[in-house]
Amino acid sequence: MTQTTPGQTQPTQTRTESDTMGQLQVAADRYWGAQTERSIHNFPIGRDTFVWGRPVIRALGILKKGAAQANAELGELPGDVADLIVRAADEVIAGKLDDHFPLVVFQTGSGTQSNMNANEVISNRAIELAGGELGSKTPVHPNDHVNRGQSSNDTFPTAMHIAVVLELNERLYGAVGKLRDTLAAKAKEYEGLVKVGRTHLQDATPITLGQEIGGWVAQLDYALAEVRHAEQGLYDLAIGGTAVGTGLNAHPQFGDLAAKKYEAETGFPFRSAENKFAALSAHDALVQTSAALRTLAGALMKMANDVRWLASGPRNGIGEITIPENEPGSSIMPGKVNPTQSEAMTMVATRVFGNDATVAFAGSQGNFQLNVFKPVMVHAVLESIRLIADASVAFNDNCAVGIEPNLERIGHNLDINLMQVTALNKHIGYDKAAAIAKKAHKDGSSLKEAALALGHVTEEQFAEWVVPLEMTRS
Amino acid sequence: MTQTTPGQTQPTQTRTESDTMGQLQVAADRYWGAQTERSIHNFPIGRDTFVWGRPVIRALGILKKGAAQANAELGELPGDVADLIVRAADEVIAGKLDDHFPLVVFQTGSGTQSNMNANEVISNRAIELAGGELGSKTPVHPNDHVNRGQSSNDTFPTAMHIAVVLELNERLYGAVGKLRDTLAAKAKEYEGLVKVGRTHLQDATPITLGQEIGGWVAQLDYALAEVRHAEQGLYDLAIGGTAVGTGLNAHPQFGDLAAKKYEAETGFPFRSAENKFAALSAHDALVQTSAALRTLAGALMKMANDVRWLASGPRNGIGEITIPENEPGSSIMPGKVNPTQSEAMTMVATRVFGNDATVAFAGSQGNFQLNVFKPVMVHAVLESIRLIADASVAFNDNCAVGIEPNLERIGHNLDINLMQVTALNKHIGYDKAAAIAKKAHKDGSSLKEAALALGHVTEEQFAEWVVPLEMTRS
Amino acid sequence: MTQTTPGQTQPTQTRTESDTMGQLQVAADRYWGAQTERSIHNFPIGRDTFVWGRPVIRALGILKKGAAQANAELGELPGDVADLIVRAADEVIAGKLDDHFPLVVFQTGSGTQSNMNANEVISNRAIELAGGELGSKTPVHPNDHVNRGQSSNDTFPTAMHIAVVLELNERLYGAVGKLRDTLAAKAKEYEGLVKVGRTHLQDATPITLGQEIGGWVAQLDYALAEVRHAEQGLYDLAIGGTAVGTGLNAHPQFGDLAAKKYEAETGFPFRSAENKFAALSAHDALVQTSAALRTLAGALMKMANDVRWLASGPRNGIGEITIPENEPGSSIMPGKVNPTQSEAMTMVATRVFGNDATVAFAGSQGNFQLNVFKPVMVHAVLESIRLIADASVAFNDNCAVGIEPNLERIGHNLDINLMQVTALNKHIGYDKAAAIAKKAHKDGSSLKEAALALGHVTEEQFAEWVVPLEMTRS
Amino acid sequence: MTQTTPGQTQPTQTRTESDTMGQLQVAADRYWGAQTERSIHNFPIGRDTFVWGRPVIRALGILKKGAAQANAELGELPGDVADLIVRAADEVIAGKLDDHFPLVVFQTGSGTQSNMNANEVISNRAIELAGGELGSKTPVHPNDHVNRGQSSNDTFPTAMHIAVVLELNERLYGAVGKLRDTLAAKAKEYEGLVKVGRTHLQDATPITLGQEIGGWVAQLDYALAEVRHAEQGLYDLAIGGTAVGTGLNAHPQFGDLAAKKYEAETGFPFRSAENKFAALSAHDALVQTSAALRTLAGALMKMANDVRWLASGPRNGIGEITIPENEPGSSIMPGKVNPTQSEAMTMVATRVFGNDATVAFAGSQGNFQLNVFKPVMVHAVLESIRLIADASVAFNDNCAVGIEPNLERIGHNLDINLMQVTALNKHIGYDKAAAIAKKAHKDGSSLKEAALALGHVTEEQFAEWVVPLEMTRS
Repeated sequence: MTQTTPGQTQPTQTRTESDTMGQLQVAADRYWGAQTERSIHNFPIGRDTFVWGRPVIRALGILKKGAAQANAELGELPGDVADLIVRAADEVIAGKLDDHFPLVVFQTGSGTQSNMNANEVISNRAIELAGGELGSKTPVHPNDHVNRGQSSNDTFPTAMHIAVVLELNERLYGAVGKLRDTLAAKAKEYEGLVKVGRTHLQDATPITLGQEIGGWVAQLDYALAEVRHAEQGLYDLAIGGTAVGTGLNAHPQFGDLAAKKYEAETGFPFRSAENKFAALSAHDALVQTSAALRTLAGALMKMANDVRWLASGPRNGIGEITIPENEPGSSIMPGKVNPTQSEAMTMVATRVFGNDATVAFAGSQGNFQLNVFKPVMVHAVLESIRLIADASVAFNDNCAVGIEPNLERIGHNLDINLMQVTALNKHIGYDKAAAIAKKAHKDGSSLKEAALALGHVTEEQFAEWVVPLEMTRS
Repeated sequence: MTQTTPGQTQPTQTRTESDTMGQLQVAADRYWGAQTERSIHNFPIGRDTFVWGRPVIRALGILKKGAAQANAELGELPGDVADLIVRAADEVIAGKLDDHFPLVVFQTGSGTQSNMNANEVISNRAIELAGGELGSKTPVHPNDHVNRGQSSNDTFPTAMHIAVVLELNERLYGAVGKLRDTLAAKAKEYEGLVKVGRTHLQDATPITLGQEIGGWVAQLDYALAEVRHAEQGLYDLAIGGTAVGTGLNAHPQFGDLAAKKYEAETGFPFRSAENKFAALSAHDALVQTSAALRTLAGALMKMANDVRWLASGPRNGIGEITIPENEPGSSIMPGKVNPTQSEAMTMVATRVFGNDATVAFAGSQGNFQLNVFKPVMVHAVLESIRLIADASVAFNDNCAVGIEPNLERIGHNLDINLMQVTALNKHIGYDKAAAIAKKAHKDGSSLKEAALALGHVTEEQFAEWVVPLEMTRS
Repeated sequence: MTQTTPGQTQPTQTRTESDTMGQLQVAADRYWGAQTERSIHNFPIGRDTFVWGRPVIRALGILKKGAAQANAELGELPGDVADLIVRAADEVIAGKLDDHFPLVVFQTGSGTQSNMNANEVISNRAIELAGGELGSKTPVHPNDHVNRGQSSNDTFPTAMHIAVVLELNERLYGAVGKLRDTLAAKAKEYEGLVKVGRTHLQDATPITLGQEIGGWVAQLDYALAEVRHAEQGLYDLAIGGTAVGTGLNAHPQFGDLAAKKYEAETGFPFRSAENKFAALSAHDALVQTSAALRTLAGALMKMANDVRWLASGPRNGIGEITIPENEPGSSIMPGKVNPTQSEAMTMVATRVFGNDATVAFAGSQGNFQLNVFKPVMVHAVLESIRLIADASVAFNDNCAVGIEPNLERIGHNLDINLMQVTALNKHIGYDKAAAIAKKAHKDGSSLKEAALALGHVTEEQFAEWVVPLEMTRS
Repeated sequence: MTQTTPGQTQPTQTRTESDTMGQLQVAADRYWGAQTERSIHNFPIGRDTFVWGRPVIRALGILKKGAAQANAELGELPGDVADLIVRAADEVIAGKLDDHFPLVVFQTGSGTQSNMNANEVISNRAIELAGGELGSKTPVHPNDHVNRGQSSNDTFPTAMHIAVVLELNERLYGAVGKLRDTLAAKAKEYEGLVKVGRTHLQDATPITLGQEIGGWVAQLDYALAEVRHAEQGLYDLAIGGTAVGTGLNAHPQFGDLAAKKYEAETGFPFRSAENKFAALSAHDALVQTSAALRTLAGALMKMANDVRWLASGPRNGIGEITIPENEPGSSIMPGKVNPTQSEAMTMVATRVFGNDATVAFAGSQGNFQLNVFKPVMVHAVLESIRLIADASVAFNDNCAVGIEPNLERIGHNLDINLMQVTALNKHIGYDKAAAIAKKAHKDGSSLKEAALALGHVTEEQFAEWVVPLEMTRS
């Protein structure tokens, strides 16, 4: 059998597949059927980069496996047919049949064609396992058996939720959590390292580097908690609603039982949504997930911006931290380390913001019993998850772990900072303290120099009274 | 004393106010001081519509009252001074001094000038209550007393949270909840009224009008729950962090105690944020609140769109519901009722989406120890709350309560709908059922006519087997 | 007659007004009629801040005046009626009747009620001028005369375009142009002042301060040109399309002639749009204008960010420029100048971005012959214009004019910058140059110190060869 | 030599490549060098879908070819070296070396690593052509020769502009233009086919189907013209600015001459930007291009929405047009044709809106002499172009060409529409006309039936006076 790629050379061997519109030829070495083939031809949109990847294909496999199990248990499918479906679906889940899912995101807005792609591939692979003839729809029919008690309108949003929940748990939390932990360890390590604070980009009273980094950690913790909260909404599945939400043609217990199967398969507490009409015509839990990812991206952007500004220089910037040099900066000038990981991270943030705009817009456009922007919504959410996760790993491994304080610069900056003068207020009064700051500012001298020059404090008093670390403890 | 309005005629009587930059003249009948006056002149930006309104002014009053109480309890303020502050702050809370808050949103990004506005007004009003001289800063000093243990950097975000929490509870939940309840009652009322369902804008199997409306209710319930969840994050207050988050110059217990005062004043469980560095340099709970409001707006948009499409016509649209006619449509043509409340609601939704874009963008732009987009963020969130609430009330009162089914049209549409043919499958088999549908489609006849003509069913059988209501029950 | 404010106390004196739905009472001292009154009650949405302001009211006046003139010229209106309308409309244009336009943005999506508000006010005022009885619709009828040959569907978008064109020309271009000119003068003034360049926030080869500022000017010039380009699209008016774009009930030459009247009134080359169907059902020229304003806001944000970073410090930042101190920064620490004008400007930018999101979203939601998001679109564009203009004036007057180089800091930074080493390449070769940079970086010394220490150049040679100004000229 | 894919199995054969940071191993069958290899390892972000595609790789080839030609002409490169570079660059242009460009979008924000990727690949391929040893940098050095007179900071934005201009011209204009022409032909074909108009989703006076479709065409024409206008800004290239905009290390005429080479290679009038500082630190022409693409997407969305609403039904919708049935809708119900191409198109629109949000956000984030969001910006713009183009082709071929009026439905709808009553006004007066409409509305009868029943007109008069086509002509 020859390998074929959609839209390219014609396969030399084909077989006949059919649907209600008639027959057509499909590459002999592909499991998909007529409806998938039609979609390939009808939607040549962004083929290079918008073919569904693992998360959605795997979720379709999980969806069909659990549906078959539930139907069998409810007497809606013969046990042997269900077993064949389960075996084929397991191969989909395992990634063995990814090459048989050629469709792109921009297709029917209900995801019908990808649902049919799953039905057709599982049907044909199940037929093959049973020793039957591909395309014969016997003994496993794509619609009557694999899609039993289902409609694209409830299966695709179900697969959307499953895919996103799995990606959040298997990809996002670990990746961002690792970065969070690295930063938390840095915050702990430098909890006593005093440095100047900055507000309005202006010198302010001291903080510790640990406090500064700890602020980033707190933001990540909040954002991650919000993503986890949004995830709860994704446990509600459309399954059982069939075409319009009424569950017509599905066994009354199908939705609940299928959800239990998904829980068994994945370990996450999926449940059949209480209101199926909303579950088909809106995807607000996905919108909320996207929004929480945006908040996470915003937190990462703030952190990455702080990192690159703190590492700016080497001489004409702030330069209070150093970051790993991962690639050549200036060939002739040492010490110039471009904050490339920060740049990748902040670019990811802008992309996540854009994806979120897409998701919210699409989510608002449902009509009556269906929102037909399903594929573009789940794609954008999955892309955001992937990008945040990947960028967090890269940032962690190639930047965060190597963040080091530039002690000399931090000390110097703190030394020349004038805001510590406030520590003198209670000892010598506001007026004398202000006079010291004024003189230091005018002379370009340090606080200590000005204080001693004015004779308001002795060197010992200055050392005893102006203790920046004390100023960082409330 | 003459009344003055900023940017208009000069007041004839003034008094001298001063700050660290020097003296200037302020209208004699205004309580504000030098820093407020400077801001009026320095930020003539959007003055017509961007002067702070009640929610922020009131929150500033609550903020200052609680701070004075906490400071007094901690021995940081003399009791009599605190009492004067509380009395003046109570007037701010009550709205008696709104005319003394002339500043606009677009000012210092930390909200410093509005914090000072509150300090100055409360100070001067307290001085007046004590029989002192306005501008004398005696016996109540705007900085040393009213702003005691505080910085704009922790007070303004505290006021932001208080303002939003109060507006959510006093304005939003009730307004949207009322609309939600109206729709829930309609859903109940029409739970048995069968009509055609629609997916992909195409005729689909039947649902009940109650189910259709119930889908909207479920969306509103979810979105409201998400707003309420986001509100939890707003209970964390920056208060106690002062300028950079360390709490320098505040009593160590000030933040916690002030938060308790805010809880006592408002009834909401405010608390001093665990991490003050994040609380000053990011406003992610506000971003999340904005995002949840966006989801709510998206749900309202879907509902409002469905309403106007269902009411479209009177003859050449769908026309399955009627909505109140609140204003003249066509002067000559009866029955043409423009869905103006839907239009107002969907316009509000686009505005809320835009506000949310502002909030998320601004929220990502913090640097080091401060995010200086505070005013624009809280303004946008408050505007979204106001618009959603107002539009919900208007939509409820002028549209939702009057939604009525057009029984004749619903019945007719259901009668001619072909999707009910699926109910015949189990009785006469798929092939005969499909033949009936085909004939009906070709002839432009009803299912029943075609079924009888083909002789596949009797009139009695048709009546017994094709029961749309049955098709709406899973 | 008593003054009344919508939604507040009931007026004590009223008169009866009527429309096709019947009669109702209107405050006796108001010119508006029944439809305006209904809208006040039906749309209590955001009343505090969303009542139409001058630009739209004035545009409605211009619209009605020109329509009356055109109709008179075409024999569609008696001359005396037209004259009365013109006189009343002139008062609307002049702002004398603003109190008679009480409606808010969130109303009918076609702006019908504001069109009727204009019709009613002009009708009643014209009646008054003629000595008639308010509400009598004689001798000037709001519909038959003032709205002659018009529909809200073509008048409101016409008023939208007129309002935006006027605001661009009377408010935006001058304000931003003034700031642009200030910056251009600064660029010229400092065209020879060399300083370090920065890329990736890292030290880079020298540029002049004039070049740095000139980059901002170039961005403003481009963005302003793009706004002016977008303005061209606004000259196309919907007028003449009436209700659905066909021009039914309007004189065939009405659209063209009315546009000529608008040109005569305003001086801008308005014309009747070639395709009226698009002009009613989409507002893409407004979307493009909004987008160009967003680009302008982005350019202003970049400039304002550079300004505050360059002014950061006073000691622990970059500090290469100083900006005016307009309000107290730190009471005790001199030299700490918060970049408040930058903060206001960047906040405005985030708001303009949000407004643009609203406009683009709303602009995409037309159906069939009408887009019913007209009011929210024009409001957002006008708000963006207002905010950019106001913020530009404030930034110009309170910041840009006072930007000064900190020569000492600039010189010092340039002195310690290592990137000038590249100037030695051609004289002593890459290897020796790199060795000098390496030594300087290691020792924390200046390039010159390291170069002399290594003996690769003499002091005279260094002075002759390392001339930063030369490095800024290509 | 074995084939390797980044991030997968290790190549069995490697060669040593080096940069200023040291040596590392690269797969022997790849032309890239050390910096590319480092980037592969440092930026494993979104590898599946974010590897640069043809447009950017080709643009990098054009960039390097023209640079070599310009340098040779200016005496900056030996002729034979330039020739080798040109030959290798031609292969890059032709797509022969795409497998040697493994880098992803999320890398250094200046695109440095992709610039180096081009330098390394062209260098090694040129060395190979000269019979040299890969990795030897002799006789063609990646930096000294291929990157001669260039910096990533000016080359990458130059490549961005070239890539987008070519994609606009070679992909977008033709694809959208074809759809536009199809629609324009339909507009012409049906210019006399009268149907009901709709405003506020309510029945309105008649228009022709040609007018309705013509409105879409007018929107596309406007949006395309705006994209073409934005394209003008892309002709300004950063080339010649080198690292900070001053052109240091480039021949003074290099920028101008290189731009001429790009013009010669592509046929588009590229020029060296007048202000290079803006060209490196901002990408506003790209932001404007993105915005124009968003307007285009909005226009396509309106069209696609109208199409699916007009085709809604088959019985319970509007059903005035039919669209091709490209895939099975309902298996049992004939005539149910899901508007899948509209769904794909509107999903694309939401994606383009999101991409635009990314571009505008990223575009606002420049600092000093560089904007480091270059890759994410150009990627998003190219994706928008690709998706709009592909979706336009699919929509054209699979939907637009097959749009047909449902004459029966159009006629019926028009027949029952009451808005034609306005045509009777001038014959029988407003009152009688209104009475007819009122009766028809009450009885559910047609206008004609009601008119005859009331006796206000004869059948002949009705036929003569109520001519919908007349009502569509102004």
